[in-house]
Amino acid sequence: MSTQPLTNGVVPQRLARTRELMSREGIHALLVPSADPHLSEYLPGYWQGRQWLSGFHGSVGTLIVTADFAGVWADSRYWEQATKELKGSGIELVKLLPGQPGPLDWLAEQTPEGGVVAVDGAVMAVASARTLGNKLQERGARLRTDIDLLNEVWSDRPSLPDQPIYQHLPPQATVSRVEKLGKLRETLKERGTDWHFIATLDDIAWLFNLRGGDVSFNPVFVSFALISQQQATLFVALSKVDDALRAVLEQDGISLRDYSEVAAALSAISDGTSLLVDPARVTAGLLDNLGSGVKLLEGLNPTTLAKSQKSLADAEHIRQAMEQDGAALCEFFAWLESAWGRERITELTIDEHLTAARTRRPGYVSLSFNTIAAFNANGAMPHYHATEEEHAVIEGDGLLLIDSGGQYLGGTTDITRMVPVGTPSAEQKRDCTRVLKGVIALSRAQFPRGILSPLLDAIARAPIWAEGVDYGHGTGHGVGYFLNVHEGPQVIAYQAAPAPQTAMQPGMITSIEPGTYRPGRWGVRIENLAMNREAGTSEFGEFLKFETLTLCPIDSRCLEPSLLTQDEREWLNAYHAEVRRRLSPLLQGAALEWLNTRTATL
Amino acid sequence: MSTQPLTNGVVPQRLARTRELMSREGIHALLVPSADPHLSEYLPGYWQGRQWLSGFHGSVGTLIVTADFAGVWADSRYWEQATKELKGSGIELVKLLPGQPGPLDWLAEQTPEGGVVAVDGAVMAVASARTLGNKLQERGARLRTDIDLLNEVWSDRPSLPDQPIYQHLPPQATVSRVEKLGKLRETLKERGTDWHFIATLDDIAWLFNLRGGDVSFNPVFVSFALISQQQATLFVALSKVDDALRAVLEQDGISLRDYSEVAAALSAISDGTSLLVDPARVTAGLLDNLGSGVKLLEGLNPTTLAKSQKSLADAEHIRQAMEQDGAALCEFFAWLESAWGRERITELTIDEHLTAARTRRPGYVSLSFNTIAAFNANGAMPHYHATEEEHAVIEGDGLLLIDSGGQYLGGTTDITRMVPVGTPSAEQKRDCTRVLKGVIALSRAQFPRGILSPLLDAIARAPIWAEGVDYGHGTGHGVGYFLNVHEGPQVIAYQAAPAPQTAMQPGMITSIEPGTYRPGRWGVRIENLAMNREAGTSEFGEFLKFETLTLCPIDSRCLEPSLLTQDEREWLNAYHAEVRRRLSPLLQGAALEWLNTRTATL
Repeated sequence: MSTQPLTNGVVPQRLARTRELMSREGIHALLVPSADPHLSEYLPGYWQGRQWLSGFHGSVGTLIVTADFAGVWADSRYWEQATKELKGSGIELVKLLPGQPGPLDWLAEQTPEGGVVAVDGAVMAVASARTLGNKLQERGARLRTDIDLLNEVWSDRPSLPDQPIYQHLPPQATVSRVEKLGKLRETLKERGTDWHFIATLDDIAWLFNLRGGDVSFNPVFVSFALISQQQATLFVALSKVDDALRAVLEQDGISLRDYSEVAAALSAISDGTSLLVDPARVTAGLLDNLGSGVKLLEGLNPTTLAKSQKSLADAEHIRQAMEQDGAALCEFFAWLESAWGRERITELTIDEHLTAARTRRPGYVSLSFNTIAAFNANGAMPHYHATEEEHAVIEGDGLLLIDSGGQYLGGTTDITRMVPVGTPSAEQKRDCTRVLKGVIALSRAQFPRGILSPLLDAIARAPIWAEGVDYGHGTGHGVGYFLNVHEGPQVIAYQAAPAPQTAMQPGMITSIEPGTYRPGRWGVRIENLAMNREAGTSEFGEFLKFETLTLCPIDSRCLEPSLLTQDEREWLNAYHAEVRRRLSPLLQGAALEWLNTRTATL
Repeated sequence: MSTQPLTNGVVPQRLARTRELMSREGIHALLVPSADPHLSEYLPGYWQGRQWLSGFHGSVGTLIVTADFAGVWADSRYWEQATKELKGSGIELVKLLPGQPGPLDWLAEQTPEGGVVAVDGAVMAVASARTLGNKLQERGARLRTDIDLLNEVWSDRPSLPDQPIYQHLPPQATVSRVEKLGKLRETLKERGTDWHFIATLDDIAWLFNLRGGDVSFNPVFVSFALISQQQATLFVALSKVDDALRAVLEQDGISLRDYSEVAAALSAISDGTSLLVDPARVTAGLLDNLGSGVKLLEGLNPTTLAKSQKSLADAEHIRQAMEQDGAALCEFFAWLESAWGRERITELTIDEHLTAARTRRPGYVSLSFNTIAAFNANGAMPHYHATEEEHAVIEGDGLLLIDSGGQYLGGTTDITRMVPVGTPSAEQKRDCTRVLKGVIALSRAQFPRGILSPLLDAIARAPIWAEGVDYGHGTGHGVGYFLNVHEGPQVIAYQAAPAPQTAMQPGMITSIEPGTYRPGRWGVRIENLAMNREAGTSEFGEFLKFETLTLCPIDSRCLEPSLLTQDEREWLNAYHAEVRRRLSPLLQGAALEWLNTRTATL
């Protein structure tokens, strides 16, 4: 997003007004996280209060305000931006480092005995609120979650998003909402719970086969759901649902209530009944509405696991979406080759042409995240995004990293490829080759069904570690089905806790994206999506293997082929043969020619 | 150990007497774990109460007795033995399965409201007692740890072991006890603790450079230690320490007190001071002696981490011990080849000859564990041990698995090799080759310093998983320096929790021992020990690599060489060249000839 620097003095005024209110309420510290009542990755403007109050526009960061201090905690991705944006605001940047104490630890240490910390409970996960509350209690201090101070000072707060909701229909929706609800109710019965409350938008969109446009890139809509054996209620701004859709939903046994009525509905749950919630995925403020006699059962939302396991019918649509996405990439790359030296190409041009190529494809809906087109040094920042104000012109020699993806009615894509510019150096080629070795090692791995996914990470990293190289991000995240490009519960990252819910199950789609980042020089990442497929049962149990879903050549001009083993070369040749077989029917002319050249046997 | 079946009726009599006492004390259930006050792997007879009361002699198992039920929980290693030994005892075998509820869960479920569960607190870790206590409390039941019912019925209880204590001296002891104590005290100061109490025998033996003979295979002695900045007290049966040693220890600032005085010493710790203990490595009964004003700090014993990181000087001695151990193995294997077809060879003969070969080596002290010599189907039981009553004759075709190790003044060894008998089948060779691939993959891995060791397991397993094969045990355990063959804190096993303390640090020694077990047919395991060595620092941080310590040919007659990649073949040839270079100076005649043949380039 393009950020407008705030006029000097605006942030200090806002802070001053906030401090007045804090003083009135006897609040020692105000915590403003980057979060909404749905704990989403992308926040509608209505919940971008931290951005508004601090002037720091990065997507992740935590603001703390006390009477004599204000600080934004941000990780290394945002240090440069935060330094710039916080200048003159009176707010310090506090650099957040992995494994180091964070803002909650700071509050626990700095809050005096008897002090009160306030956070808007509506936007803080129950689990986090408990952790913070306990830490404060140990110091004789206290957490208040019942007051939204920010709302009082935020005069020009944006309104809630109001994009229309639409159905995800067959053939791409392969399981009806009635069937999904039936299965969910079976699970609720097994778990012995009367009620289940869902706050996460992708879980709700998946369960009801509905999609929306309330946040960027994720085709979801702002809502809550409350389910029992008898009822299924969707809380949503009623203006988003037209009469026809309302009728369809009512026929399927789903009642609609206004978004604002969720608190009343929660407080109406009878004492003595039980409610299943995921404490990491529902906020403290919402649960504060429950009567004290409601028995809370805690666990992963059953929809999160069900959603992650794509069916064989889903897989067919996903393969088609991957073919369309791969064809779009081939058309884009063919254009890029023809344009070198004839047009001025920048990181922004890349984004435009690539997005245009995707837009021409059947089933395309939107991008699945902001395209990352990052040349040389920009590629060393894993979450770089070029802006009108700051972007590189692609010229000279080096590596261009393109990480992009699309939402299709039949699937969500996410792919990273390296593009040679001029003549990449030998060191750049070695980096690309080593990263590819990591991709290949994990892509062809087979593993016991149920293995905790973080434990697989070392397979991708071993060939990279072997040369004293590592990367700070995870190797793989879950990917939705025409839904969020980041979803759980599985994650391939040694930094993640191997919790039981991260177990690998058939049908899960995960990215495989090792990298190498050399600050100030270049970055390398190669990313495919892969689906867990059954690999048979032996006397040692059930095994899974990956089916590589992503279809697009891996440019061998970025590689040093002599560093590949025979096995690795065979994998790459087989992959390219498959890419050629699947994409050539969708291409013609220069794009087909490009495909044939770039998938030639190595 | 050879077990004597108990005369019929003995166990029921003991149980009846136990139940009388339970009734007298109002105890609903008695829990008898396999444990001692030091939470050791090998228990002196004095603490083998579970064996005595149940008649089940397996080394691991948990007995629960209630008024109308008695059961022994044992894992699959012991099912056959337990079924046999518990026959007619009135005690059920409860099969313990990984990931399934265990005896503590059973107690939590079966104990009625108001019920009392008793366990001798002297032999239950604080952490386990807390877990059980909390579970019982949730049910309105209660845990008593202040009564040792068993002691009252156990008329012929063995006495405490009384082997003499001796010094681990230079040159093999490379750091003096004064220096070790000094470093420990620095750590205690950093942690802000006044006192530190150690109950684990290998930590104490390591800290004081002392060794003993109180338990089989581990050169340790029954003791406790209590350390402050001013004092260091060793609690031990005073008869084990002769005057000369006592004088040496006193000169080094170490006081001796009788083993029985530990309770008094703990209760004498002043209120207001702090005590560091490892809740997983100290029992509830011991800590019950503390005054309520003592502040408990909990964490890994600092000696556990220090002990795991062998110095470069230690490494030199370990390499020599590995050479002696490898030479002993070559002599044994040369004898075995000459004896085939000329002598009757059984699993017991193997053990005798191998032990004799080790005994002839300089620096040898004892075995480091019971030799496993397991032919064909016996090899499929990872913890098999041949006995006079039941053992196989080695004849016909197949695979002989030999897992053995020695204690040397300069190190502890642990090695598994596969021996071809007659003509191993193609499937057996494939199993051996695949397991070797796992050994090679992990042995040549490089990884970031500080990686949590369980996360490395997939590197060894990937080539084995690739063919739908897996094994139920961990890939690697820590190994001591003339100390326990099993030590922490690191462990290479996906079944283990990747806790912060499992981080890989330079100097740690870990086994690398993947396997394949085909019940009723054969088992394969290949095991080397490897030490973490520094592999340099790059812009991506510090890296470690393994130095393979174990020196003994891997018999290529058990392998299918065509399944090895060029890289793997090169690793094996380089390993064999190193084995030949290091062992040939220590060998002559048939043993040298065997070494040369078995290390020929593949």
